Amino acid sequence: QPHPVVPSKAYQPSTESVFTPLDTFLPRHVGPRSNDVQEMLSVLGYKSLDEFVDATIPKNVRVDELTNEDDGKGLRAWSELELRRRAEEVAAMNKGMKSYIGMGYHNAIVPPVIQRNILENPAWYTAYTPYSPEQSQGRLESLINFQTIAISLTGLPIANASLLDESTAAAEAMAMCLASVPKPKFSKGKNVFLVSPTVSPQTLAVLETRASGFGIELKIASSNADFGAEVEALGSDRLMGTLVQYPDVNGEILDWSLVAEKVKAAGAKTVVASDLLALTMLKPPGEWGADIVCGNSQRFGVPVGYGGPHAAFFACTDDMKRKMPGRLVGLSKDSSGAPAYRLALQTREQHIRREKATSNVCTAQALLANMAAMYAVYHGPEGLRRIAGKVHSLTRVLAKVLESNGFSITNKTYFDTLTVDVTTAGISSQVIHATSVQAGINFRRIDDKTIGITLDESVGPLDLTDIVNVFYKALGKSTIEPPALEAVAQELELSSSNLTAPLQGSLARTTDFLPQTVFNKHHSETDMLRYMMHLQEKDYSLVHGMIPLGSCTMKLNSTSSMVPLSWKEFGGIHPFAPVDQARGYETLIKELESDLSLVTGYDATSVQPNSGASGEYAGLKVIQAYHESKGQGHRDICLIPLSAHGTNPASAAMVGYKVVPIKALQDGSLDLNDLRAKAEQHKDQLASFMVTYPSTFGVFEEGIEEACDIVHKNGGQVYVDGANCNSLIGLTSLGRVGGDVSHTNLHKTFSIPHGGGGPGVGPISCKAHLAPFLPTHPIIPTGGTSPISAVSAAPYGSASINTISWAYIKMLGGKGLTEVSKIALLNANYIAERLRPYYNIRFKNANGRVAHECLIDLAEFEKSAGLKVADFSKRLQDYSFHPPTAQWPISTCWLIEPTESEPKHELDRFIDALISIRKEADEIASGAQPKENNVFKNAPHPLSKIMTETWDKPYSKEKAVWPVPSLKRSKFWPTVGRVDDAAGDLNLVCECGTVEEYA
Amino acid sequence: QPHPVVPSKAYQPSTESVFTPLDTFLPRHVGPRSNDVQEMLSVLGYKSLDEFVDATIPKNVRVDELTNEDDGKGLRAWSELELRRRAEEVAAMNKGMKSYIGMGYHNAIVPPVIQRNILENPAWYTAYTPYSPEQSQGRLESLINFQTIAISLTGLPIANASLLDESTAAAEAMAMCLASVPKPKFSKGKNVFLVSPTVSPQTLAVLETRASGFGIELKIASSNADFGAEVEALGSDRLMGTLVQYPDVNGEILDWSLVAEKVKAAGAKTVVASDLLALTMLKPPGEWGADIVCGNSQRFGVPVGYGGPHAAFFACTDDMKRKMPGRLVGLSKDSSGAPAYRLALQTREQHIRREKATSNVCTAQALLANMAAMYAVYHGPEGLRRIAGKVHSLTRVLAKVLESNGFSITNKTYFDTLTVDVTTAGISSQVIHATSVQAGINFRRIDDKTIGITLDESVGPLDLTDIVNVFYKALGKSTIEPPALEAVAQELELSSSNLTAPLQGSLARTTDFLPQTVFNKHHSETDMLRYMMHLQEKDYSLVHGMIPLGSCTMKLNSTSSMVPLSWKEFGGIHPFAPVDQARGYETLIKELESDLSLVTGYDATSVQPNSGASGEYAGLKVIQAYHESKGQGHRDICLIPLSAHGTNPASAAMVGYKVVPIKALQDGSLDLNDLRAKAEQHKDQLASFMVTYPSTFGVFEEGIEEACDIVHKNGGQVYVDGANCNSLIGLTSLGRVGGDVSHTNLHKTFSIPHGGGGPGVGPISCKAHLAPFLPTHPIIPTGGTSPISAVSAAPYGSASINTISWAYIKMLGGKGLTEVSKIALLNANYIAERLRPYYNIRFKNANGRVAHECLIDLAEFEKSAGLKVADFSKRLQDYSFHPPTAQWPISTCWLIEPTESEPKHELDRFIDALISIRKEADEIASGAQPKENNVFKNAPHPLSKIMTETWDKPYSKEKAVWPVPSLKRSKFWPTVGRVDDAAGDLNLVCECGTVEEYA
Ligand SMILES: Cc1ncc(COP(=O)(O)O)c(C=O)c1O
Ligand SMILES: Cc1ncc(COP(=O)(O)O)c(C=O)c1O
Ligand SMILES: O=C([O-])O
Repeated sequence: QPHPVVPSKAYQPSTESVFTPLDTFLPRHVGPRSNDVQEMLSVLGYKSLDEFVDATIPKNVRVDELTNEDDGKGLRAWSELELRRRAEEVAAMNKGMKSYIGMGYHNAIVPPVIQRNILENPAWYTAYTPYSPEQSQGRLESLINFQTIAISLTGLPIANASLLDESTAAAEAMAMCLASVPKPKFSKGKNVFLVSPTVSPQTLAVLETRASGFGIELKIASSNADFGAEVEALGSDRLMGTLVQYPDVNGEILDWSLVAEKVKAAGAKTVVASDLLALTMLKPPGEWGADIVCGNSQRFGVPVGYGGPHAAFFACTDDMKRKMPGRLVGLSKDSSGAPAYRLALQTREQHIRREKATSNVCTAQALLANMAAMYAVYHGPEGLRRIAGKVHSLTRVLAKVLESNGFSITNKTYFDTLTVDVTTAGISSQVIHATSVQAGINFRRIDDKTIGITLDESVGPLDLTDIVNVFYKALGKSTIEPPALEAVAQELELSSSNLTAPLQGSLARTTDFLPQTVFNKHHSETDMLRYMMHLQEKDYSLVHGMIPLGSCTMKLNSTSSMVPLSWKEFGGIHPFAPVDQARGYETLIKELESDLSLVTGYDATSVQPNSGASGEYAGLKVIQAYHESKGQGHRDICLIPLSAHGTNPASAAMVGYKVVPIKALQDGSLDLNDLRAKAEQHKDQLASFMVTYPSTFGVFEEGIEEACDIVHKNGGQVYVDGANCNSLIGLTSLGRVGGDVSHTNLHKTFSIPHGGGGPGVGPISCKAHLAPFLPTHPIIPTGGTSPISAVSAAPYGSASINTISWAYIKMLGGKGLTEVSKIALLNANYIAERLRPYYNIRFKNANGRVAHECLIDLAEFEKSAGLKVADFSKRLQDYSFHPPTAQWPISTCWLIEPTESEPKHELDRFIDALISIRKEADEIASGAQPKENNVFKNAPHPLSKIMTETWDKPYSKEKAVWPVPSLKRSKFWPTVGRVDDAAGDLNLVCECGTVEEYA
Repeated sequence: QPHPVVPSKAYQPSTESVFTPLDTFLPRHVGPRSNDVQEMLSVLGYKSLDEFVDATIPKNVRVDELTNEDDGKGLRAWSELELRRRAEEVAAMNKGMKSYIGMGYHNAIVPPVIQRNILENPAWYTAYTPYSPEQSQGRLESLINFQTIAISLTGLPIANASLLDESTAAAEAMAMCLASVPKPKFSKGKNVFLVSPTVSPQTLAVLETRASGFGIELKIASSNADFGAEVEALGSDRLMGTLVQYPDVNGEILDWSLVAEKVKAAGAKTVVASDLLALTMLKPPGEWGADIVCGNSQRFGVPVGYGGPHAAFFACTDDMKRKMPGRLVGLSKDSSGAPAYRLALQTREQHIRREKATSNVCTAQALLANMAAMYAVYHGPEGLRRIAGKVHSLTRVLAKVLESNGFSITNKTYFDTLTVDVTTAGISSQVIHATSVQAGINFRRIDDKTIGITLDESVGPLDLTDIVNVFYKALGKSTIEPPALEAVAQELELSSSNLTAPLQGSLARTTDFLPQTVFNKHHSETDMLRYMMHLQEKDYSLVHGMIPLGSCTMKLNSTSSMVPLSWKEFGGIHPFAPVDQARGYETLIKELESDLSLVTGYDATSVQPNSGASGEYAGLKVIQAYHESKGQGHRDICLIPLSAHGTNPASAAMVGYKVVPIKALQDGSLDLNDLRAKAEQHKDQLASFMVTYPSTFGVFEEGIEEACDIVHKNGGQVYVDGANCNSLIGLTSLGRVGGDVSHTNLHKTFSIPHGGGGPGVGPISCKAHLAPFLPTHPIIPTGGTSPISAVSAAPYGSASINTISWAYIKMLGGKGLTEVSKIALLNANYIAERLRPYYNIRFKNANGRVAHECLIDLAEFEKSAGLKVADFSKRLQDYSFHPPTAQWPISTCWLIEPTESEPKHELDRFIDALISIRKEADEIASGAQPKENNVFKNAPHPLSKIMTETWDKPYSKEKAVWPVPSLKRSKFWPTVGRVDDAAGDLNLVCECGTVEEYA
């Protein structure tokens, strides 16, 4: 074999060498060309990029720029082809075993048409969370399909658009139960959450992590048999909620209906963790008393990917809907009364409630929810029934064969999972595992006597033969061939034509599911493809133009970084597979963690958290554990600037901290005096200070070091929210400015696409003194030496998408990452500078510079023209842009972040649009246009509004939709008129019907 | 390791078994669900599908339906997952060696953003040839970019939108030279085409195949040195044209300018085969006297794929433009004067000229041309210069190392290719090849003394080290490491900063290339992605709706069948690699050829032809060889029905046959009496009868067997054009009805996507008596025992896309293929039946049934309302459809073919549109609407026409663009108004500037 282009220790030509690769990533990743950079610098009045950077980011916090390996230190940059070869090398280190471990993770068959046209399609994966509904009707429809699946299969009336994973969803449910208990009752001891002992261990671990912060007493019932008795014993004074799993982790399907009655009688809630495929055959929990049902939707056509990302589903009763965490899509109508989807009940969203929140979830799993929804659309109820029926039938065949060979199945009932006592056949489970691994198979490792086997959609006759032969080999019997299993199937009277015969017994499902047109129409590939394209074409994404959302860093998600996660070597690994089968993941994650530590200025990193907010929570838990280790466990005050993202106070509340707000000065900077005063006032209780750097106002806080100093001197630990760190990698670092721990959003700074609202990864990085406390996992140990328990269901969170950030860092290298920060600053400052004559740029530093984003205050227009921020946002859609972040962190502002990936001509298009809009506002202010019936108030203008015979507006059609000439050549049209939030919230509809049906 | 899901001989459960896979392909491939089929049958008045089929396809030609392997014979059906596993198994049989063989094929770096968003994007690959320009502006722009590359790099003013491969392009050029010679002169002996001995051998072979049919005398010059003398010796009486290669197959770059002068002086033409990357550094042939320049564009980012598909480029002087083969994109304007692209000079298209043609090319290589064009857009002239400079620099390093080790480089000049005499270092070439293969490397095998090495963009320092070490090992020297090569590069003063320093000497390029904006703007990935998406959104494809083009079979191109061709195991193999390295391809192609033979009712198949027309040509050549083998070489009459596709007579003319037309009867069927008369009249000269079955009129000829009989009795062979065989697989066969040889269009019946005008595969299948004559190849022998010489540059033509048809056949199996035919018939007949009250369905059988397509005659509307077929086609665009095939095979008709993949609701949408259009025509006929200013004449109505303040049409805007209500929910908008063909042809512009610049 020839030299691979990149062996692990490749020969690395110098950049001057003729051998240096030409397919370097940096010039593909950044938008402006070198001549553009010069032009932009001259607009800003600088001679060089470095001079500009020096004026922008305070000198005192600067670090040595990250260098390239050319210089013998730092991070070298791999070319795109080198990266691909290296990714292949790492992928090959993962062993392609077949896992029947179950526990919420299954081998999935991803329909190729969905894989290619959703997961691998930038039009889907580069979209943002659908907060701009007129440009997002496609994925809103798909997400409502996802909600409908949850509603229809669980039998509960309300469902959200996904949560991070099954275990955190269960924890969210626990918090919802808490939120349903009146505070006084809770304080008096109605705080017990009783959990069945047969829920998945990773869920138990996450509940354990979460319970303490809320003051919840988590109790594991001694057995399922005694569960009802324990409920009664706790009674209405103590019991707040319960969690059972259906089918449970051992495959057993128990009838919980009497328990649910008792729970209700105790004034408490029943939460059920469940499985969508099993629910196609089982009586829906909503029919037997469940209040909340949640679980993983992964097996609906999403790669298992070493643990994630996958979408958790979450459904609840109507009376709990306002307490529900996460995002909820609802039907409403647009300005002309046509049906239109949008995010519903937004004021309910937890992170908006700040320290009153019981959840901090923001980024969820939209892309994976869409994949799961499309899977159900493609198969339809009949197809799902057949898949479930086949899985169950094969499980029956397996059970019969095992039993007739002396193995005993310890679960009396089952859908797809058998728990097998192998000692009854005279064998230890060690022997079975050794034999199975030799055969390339993983079973669940329970204990010396018992193993678990979970079947799934991917199991064919040869797979089942392989499974059976493990037992035959262990018994010393000669192996069988598939016809032997056919014979068993025939004995059991199983055939392809009776697959959809339901489970027997009282827990069999009797109600239909998914009767809606959308689930009963698109079953040919042609039809499916067109449906996905039909939705895609309604949605604005990075393939159309800039998405200048402040604090969201909507940068390029390069194809080269996206490709590897489609490979089966990454997609097919079960998160609980023995670690020696996942050396590829181990290598990649170690490299990523070490690279992240380096570039953030910390000593250790954990990629377990599945979102930025989850990272905040994990980081604060780590701080808490640290204080406890020092005998300072009573410290519980968390100082947070008023400008902080809502997740910061929400996370603090979730760990049980009391939030004390810190003011800002007129110029937007932190009020150091206020901070000092509060820190000193609370110095015996001070646990933490949470601060975003650069600040959410888009400036590099001059006083950051002093602030951290104050906190440290008063016994606190500093949490630096790293959501904004795209501005600073290689120039300064979160550690350098004084942080003890930070999360970064890999889905912002490190190029994981936003996926229309997730997935994300929110790793936490910390200084050495906190490293011992990084989170572990009950099955695959991770983290530090005195770790906190798990914050996610999977040991490495959304492991498979770590490939993206790994590739991003590797391809840029140290120099490239630093250059990226500089261009991110330059792009933002170019916009700010050119808009300065037209708009009020709120905060700048002494040199007039902003950081990587800028705040534009639109308050003046409310006074002069009656125009609100929302009016500007809607109007900007008419210019074929996604609006910036609006009304946050200041309610009258836009927060604009272009990122380094936008080319100069796109920045100019944006600037021109804003200048034009400013003139439109002036016309209203001057009275040349009316205050109500104008281009803002009527914005956005979809085609349907324009295509009318009569045009009764006081402005021309041309002005409405083509206010600048370039729009005639190319324009993304919003597909509905302005959506009415209030109407939809009043009458919440969160199930489909397609828009077509409502029309 | 576990059982693979599909080992080559997999266990196959019966369809009744509970183990039978659920991811079967048939229900995904066909549109109508079983209840739809019942409804459609009841509209047609049949109880069962079989009853319907019996009424549709004549009983006498029926065969036993292809059965499934369940029954122990026939073709089993693989599930989608099984197919994937089997494809992985086959892929693994190809050895991943690195080839430096050159000869027109290179390792390419495909930019990931292009791979994902063009090659793997159904919006690009499912589009049709852009004959409906208002719905195709995106790919028309991209193709004009491709033309611009050829124009700019060759220095000639006109270029087409691709040909099939370099060798057939050279043959087309030869025929163009011929077409430039006045007939009388030609007859008097001005018929010599003089070829340099150092053109690629595959080109020589294809020229040899082609020359005879035209009566061209092909002469290989004795040496390049004597070329000029031979030109003079032949002089203006004999010489018609010449072909030289620049750089030649051995890498030599010769100055041909004096020769070109002499050729010109002899009144002949100079054709140059060249290389786009080399041309970035070389003086363009257009500057030194070339009349035509052609070559392969593969190395511009298209996978080598074992020989294809790739796009050949083709450029010529202005005076030859009307003789140019293939499609040509030109700029024109639309009905409102806005710039718009469309296919230019269509009356020039060769296949329209029928037997007067000198080319039959139709399907070309649009998708690959688009990839190559995007590659140049992404890199720009500067990037291309750097790539070329690096390739050349590394070649210099290699030359220096080899020479200093005693090897002699036999070419004095070079760009990227060295021809090495290894005996000067005391080694035989056998030793070098043995050593290189051990190192995983292929060099070109020239002879015992000489080997060839061609470097390319993918070569890095380790690759070059590996190459050098082959020689070191062969010499018994210890191997080197990359720094040794760095040292050589430094000696040569080569570095990354002087890459673009041009070649030295008089042949160095001095003119700039690709100055247009489009090649100098989209160099970041974000920008590139948006450019591709911007174009994509202008184009209608199967992702939007039906493309009912008769004779084109626009069916589903399933993702599962498309996936494998993206794998490096298929993409990375050089076509001239030793066959033992390509066992995967060998296996796949053998299986495909045998499956194709089975389903077409023949005995042997060759996949070498790259299109249907190329298959026709190959099939006729086989017939010709057969006649010759029987001493009947004088037979040269070819009977062809008047209704035949233009390629049939063109192909016949190209093999030197005289075409005698056969009439049709009133009912559309073949006039058997005319056939008998002509066959008998010419019985001593009768070579062949070419017939399409079912006919191009969309009916199953009742007399087909008798017709074939007549021909056979008179000594002729029957060529059945299989373009329409999507109607009959499993029901009858091309062999069964009497054919001796046929081509099938894999890009129609067997699911290869049309790619916006190619690629295609046109394999020929034949009876045993013709099998010995199937084509071979000069480097990799293929075909029969007395083969004709090559018809394509590569031994297996467009090898890599054979994966698609292979997968298609495997996943449907015999039963599935048969069911597909039935549904194709049903869909067409459902349309015909429902339209019957509104339109004149031209031809039906005695039971009133059409085949898989139906001809609608619109002549009546010309009389009643002054409406032409084109008016109907343009109006149909307003209904969000691609128009059917128009004016062919009858000038007043539409030919409508829905295919089996269209769901019933899409057929209904189409039928409703046609009924609505019929009513619109009636309004004009009745005088309710004017004859000129109406919805037809003004169609299509793009947005720009509607968005006007004033609306001066006598019908409403709503009627113009939303004539049926469903269009409000979903509509594909044409992006320009009706394109003016005449204006553009008058003033031909076939280079870019983008539309934006012309605007
Ligand atoms: C400053 C800040 N912190 C935290 C978060 C939360 O991150 P995530 O949405 O990944 O949970 C965000 C998200 O926008 C943010 O802007
Ligand atoms: C009947 C018939 N024969 C031959 C051809 C030529 O096939 P190709 O375009 O692949 O060269 C066609 C193409 O439409 C056709 O319809
Ligand atoms: O491609 C055709 O000309 O039909």
